[in-house]
Amino acid sequence: ITNMRLKLPITCFILEIILIILFGVLVEYDEDTDAKKFNKHFNTSMEHSDAENDFYYRYPSFQDVHVMIFIGFGFLMTFLQRYGFSSVGFNFLIAAFSLQWATLMQGFFHGMHGGKIHIGVESMINADFCTGSVLISFGAVLGKTSPVQLMIMAMFEVTLFSVNEFILLSILGTRDAGGSMTIHTFGAYFGLMVTRILYRPNLHKSKHRNGSVYHSDLFAMIGTIYLWMFWPSFNSAVTEHGDAQHRTAMNTYYSLAACTLSSYAMSSLTAHDGKLDMVHIQNAALAGGVAVGTAGEMMLTPFGSMIVGFLAGIISVLGFKYLSPILEEKLKIQDTCGVHNLHGMPGILGAIVGAVTASLATKEVYGNGLGRVFPDVADGREASYQGGIQAVSLAVTLGIALIGGLIVGFILKLPVFGAPHDTTCYEDSLYWEVSMMILMLMMVFIFVKVMCPHFTHYFEYI
Amino acid sequence: ITNMRLKLPITCFILEIILIILFGVLVEYDEDTDAKKFNKHFNTSMEHSDAENDFYYRYPSFQDVHVMIFIGFGFLMTFLQRYGFSSVGFNFLIAAFSLQWATLMQGFFHGMHGGKIHIGVESMINADFCTGSVLISFGAVLGKTSPVQLMIMAMFEVTLFSVNEFILLSILGTRDAGGSMTIHTFGAYFGLMVTRILYRPNLHKSKHRNGSVYHSDLFAMIGTIYLWMFWPSFNSAVTEHGDAQHRTAMNTYYSLAACTLSSYAMSSLTAHDGKLDMVHIQNAALAGGVAVGTAGEMMLTPFGSMIVGFLAGIISVLGFKYLSPILEEKLKIQDTCGVHNLHGMPGILGAIVGAVTASLATKEVYGNGLGRVFPDVADGREASYQGGIQAVSLAVTLGIALIGGLIVGFILKLPVFGAPHDTTCYEDSLYWEVSMMILMLMMVFIFVKVMCPHFTHYFEYI
Amino acid sequence: ITNMRLKLPITCFILEIILIILFGVLVEYDEDTDAKKFNKHFNTSMEHSDAENDFYYRYPSFQDVHVMIFIGFGFLMTFLQRYGFSSVGFNFLIAAFSLQWATLMQGFFHGMHGGKIHIGVESMINADFCTGSVLISFGAVLGKTSPVQLMIMAMFEVTLFSVNEFILLSILGTRDAGGSMTIHTFGAYFGLMVTRILYRPNLHKSKHRNGSVYHSDLFAMIGTIYLWMFWPSFNSAVTEHGDAQHRTAMNTYYSLAACTLSSYAMSSLTAHDGKLDMVHIQNAALAGGVAVGTAGEMMLTPFGSMIVGFLAGIISVLGFKYLSPILEEKLKIQDTCGVHNLHGMPGILGAIVGAVTASLATKEVYGNGLGRVFPDVADGREASYQGGIQAVSLAVTLGIALIGGLIVGFILKLPVFGAPHDTTCYEDSLYWEVSMMILMLMMVFIFVKVMCPHFTHYFEYI
Repeated sequence: ITNMRLKLPITCFILEIILIILFGVLVEYDEDTDAKKFNKHFNTSMEHSDAENDFYYRYPSFQDVHVMIFIGFGFLMTFLQRYGFSSVGFNFLIAAFSLQWATLMQGFFHGMHGGKIHIGVESMINADFCTGSVLISFGAVLGKTSPVQLMIMAMFEVTLFSVNEFILLSILGTRDAGGSMTIHTFGAYFGLMVTRILYRPNLHKSKHRNGSVYHSDLFAMIGTIYLWMFWPSFNSAVTEHGDAQHRTAMNTYYSLAACTLSSYAMSSLTAHDGKLDMVHIQNAALAGGVAVGTAGEMMLTPFGSMIVGFLAGIISVLGFKYLSPILEEKLKIQDTCGVHNLHGMPGILGAIVGAVTASLATKEVYGNGLGRVFPDVADGREASYQGGIQAVSLAVTLGIALIGGLIVGFILKLPVFGAPHDTTCYEDSLYWEVSMMILMLMMVFIFVKVMCPHFTHYFEYI
Repeated sequence: ITNMRLKLPITCFILEIILIILFGVLVEYDEDTDAKKFNKHFNTSMEHSDAENDFYYRYPSFQDVHVMIFIGFGFLMTFLQRYGFSSVGFNFLIAAFSLQWATLMQGFFHGMHGGKIHIGVESMINADFCTGSVLISFGAVLGKTSPVQLMIMAMFEVTLFSVNEFILLSILGTRDAGGSMTIHTFGAYFGLMVTRILYRPNLHKSKHRNGSVYHSDLFAMIGTIYLWMFWPSFNSAVTEHGDAQHRTAMNTYYSLAACTLSSYAMSSLTAHDGKLDMVHIQNAALAGGVAVGTAGEMMLTPFGSMIVGFLAGIISVLGFKYLSPILEEKLKIQDTCGVHNLHGMPGILGAIVGAVTASLATKEVYGNGLGRVFPDVADGREASYQGGIQAVSLAVTLGIALIGGLIVGFILKLPVFGAPHDTTCYEDSLYWEVSMMILMLMMVFIFVKVMCPHFTHYFEYI
Repeated sequence: ITNMRLKLPITCFILEIILIILFGVLVEYDEDTDAKKFNKHFNTSMEHSDAENDFYYRYPSFQDVHVMIFIGFGFLMTFLQRYGFSSVGFNFLIAAFSLQWATLMQGFFHGMHGGKIHIGVESMINADFCTGSVLISFGAVLGKTSPVQLMIMAMFEVTLFSVNEFILLSILGTRDAGGSMTIHTFGAYFGLMVTRILYRPNLHKSKHRNGSVYHSDLFAMIGTIYLWMFWPSFNSAVTEHGDAQHRTAMNTYYSLAACTLSSYAMSSLTAHDGKLDMVHIQNAALAGGVAVGTAGEMMLTPFGSMIVGFLAGIISVLGFKYLSPILEEKLKIQDTCGVHNLHGMPGILGAIVGAVTASLATKEVYGNGLGRVFPDVADGREASYQGGIQAVSLAVTLGIALIGGLIVGFILKLPVFGAPHDTTCYEDSLYWEVSMMILMLMMVFIFVKVMCPHFTHYFEYI
């Protein structure tokens, strides 16, 4: 059995103390959060200056993103029948850690100010974004890793995420406001490689717990719906002020709506009896948000957004239905939440759509707004070159994610991190005090199943 | 059995492809979402111009409305013990369809710009509003219609909603910011007429599933509380900027608070043992939001709002307790969620309150703000005439809703749409893959109930 | 049995009618919600004037606070296995009452304008804040009081809260934007004293219901996560515009993140088998928000905030583990939700941190922003004196809370308010119509437990 009594506290305490020390040494309020700096020109036009604080442009978006990270991702993963505490609880733990660590790593790469990292609402959003990437990877390994393994994975993944993000946004001048590449593609392929390395040939011993029950699916729908509703805020949270935020939110809104219809259609179409599958609805309906993560801020038009969302939903359901079983059997990738179908393929689709849309950017369409969406193109870079950069960025992201996942996967295999046994995967009671009543309930099931198999004919009447 | 394998995918695919084509032909970014148009006067005063983008005035309200539509309505209907997937899932599907279709229909009626529909955050809110009306009607037929029927209903209802809205807001000059008439009264009476036409004399065969269980009621409370909390945003989402949004939100806040107290009081008072009924709390406590939908933006005062909310709560509980059984027995209206009590009667109350408040509007009370609440009155229309217009609008709304519901009800009776059998209403497993475990659980219940009826004396000790 | 049929309706009706009358006599729209006042200078610069309406600075924060009050507090308390309806439902009822009563009491003490109370979004936030304090006290007595007792408690507590708030903020010039003292310390110690006076020596007769089940803990996590996510909005909701709101939100964000890690660490460390305890996660992880309630708006730095959050998480878990049992056994304080650990001790910590931070305030650090955080210090008061005032304020708060709780506790003992019997605490069916099915389920448990004790060996295989 995996006893976390010393490992988990030590990991948490050491990491948090390091974080606090580094924050003490490196972090400062930025121009909009510091009392002195912000009020430097304190005079009659004070009110006006207050309204220009970035807080009012971005804090509502931040809170929506925050809900996606903690409620959205957290509850989306509660679909497992006996892993609800861990899904929400470990999501909570590694997110709280990752956002702190991401503040430092992103601040470091984003450019220091006189040796200091300056933070405000935009850095908070970016920290939450990076955290989202870690949670995507968490979805791939869900139920098969101890919280200590997850903390270690988060530490490395945040670091590699920041490196990749730095290469794309700062060196290459890639545009990726909603993170189709930096967040979704990176998080998915990193996680898939980690779960490949952590492959468990005997995972079937926990098979009976790797599924949902009625109410766990309803809890998961809370996660799905929150992710779906707030995705427009996610994609628009760090775009330029004004039309860019507005347009991105709207493109995402229509992409998701179209994606929902194609997801339902495909879910019913691919079932032999036409019945909808909760797994598809919970996941594929979100693919439209992923797939406009890059192009959402561009002049994609609602028309274009809907086409992208429509395709994303189809691809995602097909992935769940036909590709995931192949990945598991042939490539030994045990992807608990199917992140390849929600974040992996739609992320790649989003990167491609972004590259194509960027390569078509013209002064005629964007007018004076060109420089606010494509600063490099406004400064003379060819639009087609920008498109090429976007495509290269996808390759870079995939490369760093896969190599990173490979290395981190092997690190996580170290026995010291206390991975659960093959027979105790997807099981809360390993990590949490679970009340006896739920165990009683399970007992009744087994009792009835074992003692009275002839009762199964009741099924028809219910 | 209702096999949806072809019907549902075909419906979804055809509708979505039509939507995409129409968006491609008809829809354009508006002044605040288009990169070129918004940045036309890109100069030194750029920041100021960004802050004036309608996005910052309305997007937080939009997101609150969005939560009401997808979480609020979706979870409110999960109270049924075996229909949670369908409640949340069909709510999700028809909302995602309706908001796209509403964008086109409302844009068409709202006035085209050179043959194009211009869209932005305000049109998104209006699309969500129209969707809300469809979901109200969904509540009336909940559990008794297939998803294909629901999609067809949504298609027609969105169209008729837009016609009615056009007549009221554009032709008559009616004020109805929170939609007491356009959304609530319309949606309720349309749905009631549809459910009347779809009357099932043998619905009692599914009676045992038409009720809640403990946890399904808790899920429903999530829906209720979200609707309650965000109703101030709903009513104020499309009012004028500034004092109008502010005042509307506040009036709604106090109306709902007063309504909550009268709902609890009436629920306890009308029960023979004084026990509160979850159905009342889940619904009647919201009637205060419906009832200030029209007058909320006016100078109703918190005092007036509280009186309206107080009465709405009383009316609503009385409706659930005494009127709904009569409607079902005498008028053959099987209203699953009791939308007549939450949206129907409170909507009419709201229309009347709006008419009275409008007729009392004076320059003395509204000052220079008169033109922002009542543009026609500021332009010379008599306030009493405005009040009359408001009253006429209620009649128009009722007429279009009832006639529309009549026609659409008969359309939905066509057997091709696959309505469920009388014995399989309120049942998820008809449309969804449902895990065996919940069926096992139900089996245990039946086993105990059938085999050991003498165990009922245990009830006293629990 | 506690029959509420007359008591509850009479209480609700009388209180609401009094509220409505007082609102009619005393309450007016403020400058930003009144059509006439706000549009007084209606001219070409209208747009600009709209953006300056306080609505746009504070309404998103208000809605986050609103969610904390109704979803956060409401669902946090659903952890009890048989008290979910009451937790959410009574939370809803007493909150809806308290926010109306608080509007009047706070308006009265805050300064009348020509005999009238002026209200707008800031007064709505303050009313919700006061309500939060009542809900904290509700947590202490949860499961042991009738709704009538709760309404009476709310009535008195809102009044005393307003008196204490007036003494601190208006007379002493204390700073307490996030309410470490006014909300958390006050609410906790008031509630603890009430529950002390209502001590039940035979509460063990309801012991078997004073615990959670699997799904009730998941519902409670919804409450926890919402409180956690929106606490930055809570602490910053009524600070000055601009940098102050921005800084407060950010400080709270980092305090909570650090608190989460120390809570998990301590929960695992203090369990003999290293397993996490849901009670700790649901509560202690929030202590970081309480503990920066006072100092959050100050130049505490993220570094300082993280230290405070880190300590708050440790203190809180230790409280649950070691102090609560002592309080119950020795001091006869039956604190159902452990509010002493989440609000009491972290509130005191927050007050102390605030006093220290205030005493260190300098013009050098705050620049021109000094007057916006410490108006009295900018006007000449010594910073160290301000620190002393903060410390005195803690003592005043504790005094009023404890004496107030003492008196109100004795009032609540009057038999007319219908307290539940010792054997029927933590039981929904006393106040709510509860469907039979959940009772059937409980029966099956008891049946299995009683008839087949040898089946317990199945536990090992589940």
